[in-house]
Amino acid sequence: MRKRALPLERVYQLLEPGPVVLLTTARKGRANVMTLSWHAMLDFVPPLVCLVVSRQDYSRGLLNPTKQCVINIPDAPLARAVVGVGNCSGRDADKFARFGLTKVPATVVRPPMIQECFASLECRVVDSSMADVYDLFVVEVIAAWADSRAENPRTLHHRGLGNFMIAGRTLRLPSKMK
Amino acid sequence: MRKRALPLERVYQLLEPGPVVLLTTARKGRANVMTLSWHAMLDFVPPLVCLVVSRQDYSRGLLNPTKQCVINIPDAPLARAVVGVGNCSGRDADKFARFGLTKVPATVVRPPMIQECFASLECRVVDSSMADVYDLFVVEVIAAWADSRAENPRTLHHRGLGNFMIAGRTLRLPSKMK
Repeated sequence: MRKRALPLERVYQLLEPGPVVLLTTARKGRANVMTLSWHAMLDFVPPLVCLVVSRQDYSRGLLNPTKQCVINIPDAPLARAVVGVGNCSGRDADKFARFGLTKVPATVVRPPMIQECFASLECRVVDSSMADVYDLFVVEVIAAWADSRAENPRTLHHRGLGNFMIAGRTLRLPSKMK
Repeated sequence: MRKRALPLERVYQLLEPGPVVLLTTARKGRANVMTLSWHAMLDFVPPLVCLVVSRQDYSRGLLNPTKQCVINIPDAPLARAVVGVGNCSGRDADKFARFGLTKVPATVVRPPMIQECFASLECRVVDSSMADVYDLFVVEVIAAWADSRAENPRTLHHRGLGNFMIAGRTLRLPSKMK
């Protein structure tokens, strides 16, 4: 499926529900991907997101100096890849090859987008001041891409210990909330 | 349904999937409740959570000086109350009365727990240093309560504009992930 440009003011609609994401980073021609659930929106436009990348993660060493990443959002058919990626380190393996994830060049940043994910959000780190204490990075989404699955995505939501809630039906209620 | 003590090391299992929550605060005998989706885990034990409470929110004026709150987690039958709470301000209304939410005394903090929610997490603010820039508060969960619905909760996940994804089925995969 082909991704199209997603208006930046719609980015929060993909992240606010709390899906597991696959974060890609790259440095010196080497890319990595990690599984991540600890993220939250901080602002609508420009979309600001905070995310936790621990100092134990191999990705931390790629994210810190380059200040670039891509937040890729997988859906249910990628569940096994999501667990696989979360269960090994980029120090030991090319996780893209091992779990059948296809790297596609991003448009603004160096880390790749993942073809199999229904959405890819190109980001730059705008604040690392909370990294020392909380492993927390604030990133700004500067380009966003999504395919038609983004309309009602069957996202994965981690309940711990390999238990994933799969997004169910949508309830639409009249609301003034953004 | 009666809530029982939830071990603190299990708190992340309730928040990591990204549900909409109802945040209660209290000051000078007056309590308030707000709808909130912008939260993320920061650590497992003690459970640290970051959450966004904007300076426009009436709750901000209760949270800031008291440094206490309760994160209550509603499930699907509470969807209309969740939207109602999100669509008005505590400046103008007693939202508990208006939306049929029952206040129950918490055990360690002043803000009430909400009886109708399947889980209630008593919190104290441990870091407000990111409040000025990002409206972000770091809270520590110091007591946690959940009833039997917490085993497979039909949580609400906001996709924007009053569209709520309702938690679907659970997929269990062998994993080394916590």
